[in-house]
Amino acid sequence: MSENKIPYKIYLNEEEMPKAWYNLRADMKNKPAPLLNPGTGQPLTAEEMSGIFCEELVAQELDNDTKFFEIPDEIREFYKMYRPSPVVRAYCLEKALGTPAKIYYKFEGNNTSGSHKLNSAIAQAYYAKKQGLKGVTTETGAGQWGTALSMACAYLGLDCKVYMVKVSYEQKPFRREVMRTYGASVTPSPSNTTNVGRKILEEFPDTTGSLGCAISEAVEVAVSNEGYRYVLGSVLNQVLLHQSVIGLETKTALDKYGIKPDIIIGCAGGGSNLGGLIAPFMGEKLRGEADYRIIAVEPASCPSFTRGTYAYDFCDTGMICPLAKMYTLGSSFIPSANHAGGLRFHGMSTVLSQLYHDGLMEATSVEQTSVFEAAEQFARTEGILPAPESSHAIRVAIDEALKCKETGEEKTIVFGLTGTGYFDLVAYQQFNDGKMTDYIPTDEEIAASVAKLPQVPGQE
Amino acid sequence: MSENKIPYKIYLNEEEMPKAWYNLRADMKNKPAPLLNPGTGQPLTAEEMSGIFCEELVAQELDNDTKFFEIPDEIREFYKMYRPSPVVRAYCLEKALGTPAKIYYKFEGNNTSGSHKLNSAIAQAYYAKKQGLKGVTTETGAGQWGTALSMACAYLGLDCKVYMVKVSYEQKPFRREVMRTYGASVTPSPSNTTNVGRKILEEFPDTTGSLGCAISEAVEVAVSNEGYRYVLGSVLNQVLLHQSVIGLETKTALDKYGIKPDIIIGCAGGGSNLGGLIAPFMGEKLRGEADYRIIAVEPASCPSFTRGTYAYDFCDTGMICPLAKMYTLGSSFIPSANHAGGLRFHGMSTVLSQLYHDGLMEATSVEQTSVFEAAEQFARTEGILPAPESSHAIRVAIDEALKCKETGEEKTIVFGLTGTGYFDLVAYQQFNDGKMTDYIPTDEEIAASVAKLPQVPGQE
Repeated sequence: MSENKIPYKIYLNEEEMPKAWYNLRADMKNKPAPLLNPGTGQPLTAEEMSGIFCEELVAQELDNDTKFFEIPDEIREFYKMYRPSPVVRAYCLEKALGTPAKIYYKFEGNNTSGSHKLNSAIAQAYYAKKQGLKGVTTETGAGQWGTALSMACAYLGLDCKVYMVKVSYEQKPFRREVMRTYGASVTPSPSNTTNVGRKILEEFPDTTGSLGCAISEAVEVAVSNEGYRYVLGSVLNQVLLHQSVIGLETKTALDKYGIKPDIIIGCAGGGSNLGGLIAPFMGEKLRGEADYRIIAVEPASCPSFTRGTYAYDFCDTGMICPLAKMYTLGSSFIPSANHAGGLRFHGMSTVLSQLYHDGLMEATSVEQTSVFEAAEQFARTEGILPAPESSHAIRVAIDEALKCKETGEEKTIVFGLTGTGYFDLVAYQQFNDGKMTDYIPTDEEIAASVAKLPQVPGQE
Repeated sequence: MSENKIPYKIYLNEEEMPKAWYNLRADMKNKPAPLLNPGTGQPLTAEEMSGIFCEELVAQELDNDTKFFEIPDEIREFYKMYRPSPVVRAYCLEKALGTPAKIYYKFEGNNTSGSHKLNSAIAQAYYAKKQGLKGVTTETGAGQWGTALSMACAYLGLDCKVYMVKVSYEQKPFRREVMRTYGASVTPSPSNTTNVGRKILEEFPDTTGSLGCAISEAVEVAVSNEGYRYVLGSVLNQVLLHQSVIGLETKTALDKYGIKPDIIIGCAGGGSNLGGLIAPFMGEKLRGEADYRIIAVEPASCPSFTRGTYAYDFCDTGMICPLAKMYTLGSSFIPSANHAGGLRFHGMSTVLSQLYHDGLMEATSVEQTSVFEAAEQFARTEGILPAPESSHAIRVAIDEALKCKETGEEKTIVFGLTGTGYFDLVAYQQFNDGKMTDYIPTDEEIAASVAKLPQVPGQE
C-alpha cells in the first residue's frame, strides 16, 4: 500500500472542528418561506415563538441572513466527547461491488444516542440552560431524538420530560431504558399528565398513541410549567443550522486530501441530517463556486419530495403546531408499515423544500426490502450495522457505484451514515426471516390527505 | 484552554497501529502452566490440539518464547475498519468527581460487535481461512463473542456456526439477529443437530441449556465435519496474544503525550481484555523497566481471583475441554444472577493466573449494584452507555480517583472500557427500577465446587 493512500478513516484533530455553525439560508437567493401562525395566517413573530421555544433558538430560527453562528465553548467541549466523527473510505464495499467509484461516508453513529441527533440536542439544551430554565419537554417516536436529548440534559443538569408514543414505549423498552438511565422522565403518550392526554384517553381508552398526540402533550407541559420550553429534533431551521457541523467536518476532511465529491447522498425524513451534511457544499453551489449532484433519499412508503405537494401544512398530525411551507403528503397522511421510524414524517424542512423547488437538488425514493439488502451488504463488508434510515442512503450510494461500474466512471460518492441499527433489530429479524414487505401508497391515498391541506391566505 | 492540552480523544494514525502482537509469555520468568489432556494428565501436544484448533493458532497457543508475532496484512486491513480505538481523557468524569486524578480509558466498543472480542475473532477466522477450512464453530452465551465471530467470518467468506445457549437465544433475540444478519447460522443449544445435544434433550427435554452444553455441541460439530475447527473467545493464550493490540495502542497513545499511568484497571472474566490491555505494561514490569499497579476487577458473585483456588481444572462445565491451571471456583460453580454475562466464567486465563500468583498484579471484587451506580455516573458524564462488564473497571477507577481526592494525589489512572451496553438494557431496567440485587456466594458454596476439582498427577 502506498504511503499516500487515503486512510480508511479520516479523523480531524479536535482543533480542526468547526468553531461556528453555517447558516445555509444566508446564501439562499430564494429564502425559505416563513412559519405561519395557524390562527391568523400571518408569519410567526419572535414573541409568539418564545412561549414555546428558547429565546436564542427563536433568533436562530428566524435569522435568514447571519452566515455563521459561533458554537459556544460549552457545546464544543461536549462535541469533543464524540466528535469529530470520521469520514470513512468504504474500501471494502468498493471491492465487493467491483466499482471504480470511490465511496466515502460520514459516520455519525459512534455515540450512545446512535445518531446525529445529539448535535442539535446539546445545542438546544445548552440555550435552555443559559436562559435559566429548569427543563425541556419533547416527544419521541422510535426514541433516537429522546435519547439524544436525555444525554444532553444529563450532562447539563437539566430536567428532561419525554412523551413517548405508547406503542413505542411498550415495544421499544430498550430505548426507554437508555433515556431513564440518563435521568429523563419518560411518559407513555397519551397520558393522564396533561389535559389533551386525558381528553384523548377518555375518548379512546385503548389508543396506542401517535406522534401528533405526543407533541401536543409535550407542548402543553412546556407552556403550562414555569421554566420549561419545548424542543424538536428535526424539520426546524435551527436544527439544520446545528447539524451543519456534519457537513463542515466532512468538507474539511475531504479538502485535507484534495477529494472533491461528484455526488452527495443523504436520507431525508424531516431533513436534519441531509440539511446538515450538504450545507457547505450547497453553499458553494449557491455561490457558483462548485457544482455537485445532491440526492435526497426517502422511503417509497412516505415520499414527501417525490410525490408530495409544495404547500403550507401543519408540521404535526395534531394540527397544533405552526404552518410550514414544504413538500408534504398532508398532515393526515399515515405512512403504513415502515421500519425507518425517522423517515415517517409527512413533510420536509422548509429550507430543503425551497432548494428542491428551485431545482438545486434531486430526490428519489426506495423500497424497504431493497434498503435492507443494501444494509446487509454494507454490514457484512464495512462491519457496521446501519440504521434503517441511513440504509436508504446506502442503497442509492450502491446503485450509483454500480452505474459507475457499467460506465467505467471513477466518480466520488459521499453519503451520510446517520446512525447504527442496534435498536432496530425487529426490522432486521423480519428481513432475515424473509418476511419484510414493501408498500407504496396509491395516488388516491396521497390525493385524499393532500385534499385536507389547510386554507392559507394567498395559497392557491 | 491551552494549545498543549491533552485532547479528549487520542487517536493514533493508521500507520501507528501495531504491526505485531506482543506475546507477554516471552517475558515471563515463570511461564504459565501447560494445558493438560484430561485423559492422560499429560501436557497437550500440538497434534492433539490440531484436531480442534487451526494449526497456526495451536502454534501461537504453545509458544512461550517468541516475543512478537507479525500481524498479517489482511488482519491489519480489517483492524483499520474499526481501529485504532481511542484513548479517551475522562475530563467530564474527573470534573464530576472533583478529583485531582487524571483518568483515561481505552474504548473498545466502537464497532458493531460492541466489544474488544473482534480483535481475536478476525485473527482466528483469518487463520482458519488460510488453512483452507470451510468454516468455524463456537458457542456464545450473551452473544458478544458470537457477534464478533460472525462479523469476521462474513468479511472473509467463511461459514460460521454458532451454538447459543437456548435461554439467551430466546431472551436475547437482538444479538441473535445481528449474527444472522452477518450470515451466521445460530442454533439454540441443546439442539437436535448433535449427538450430545440429542442425548441431553432426551434426558432433559425442558432444559434451557448451558454454556458447557453449547461448547460440547460446537466442538462435536467441529471435529465431526470435514473442514471445520472450533474457536474460543477468551481464556486461551492465543486470545491474549491477539488482544495485546489493545495495550500496544494504549501505550503508544500515552507515550505520544508523555503520560505514564500509575494504576491500570481492567475487568476480568476469562481475562482476554485485561490480558490484552496490560500486556506491554506488564512486560515493562517483568523486565524491570517500569512499575505499575495493575488491578483485575471481578464480580463479587463470581470471584475467581479473590476467592478461588490456584489449581488444574476443566475450562468448561461440560468437562470435555483440556485442563488448565488457573484461579478457579471449580467448573461446577454456578454463578447466581449476575448480568455481566462476560464475567461469569468460573476460571481465569493461565497467563493472568500465573502473574497474579507471582504477586505481579492485584485483584478486587465489586458488587453489582455499585457497578451500575458507576455505570450510570459514567454514562451521564462521559456520554457512553457502558457494558456491565466494563463497568466493573469503571467502579474501581472511580473509587481510586475518589481516594486521590482525599489524599490530593494527582495519580494517572487508565482503565479498559471494553464495550457498550446497548444489548444489556434488561439489566439497566432492573437498576433503574431499583430492583437490582447483589449476591455473594458463601464460603461453603465455593468449597463445595472446589472439592470437585479433577485429580491431576502431581497436584496436591
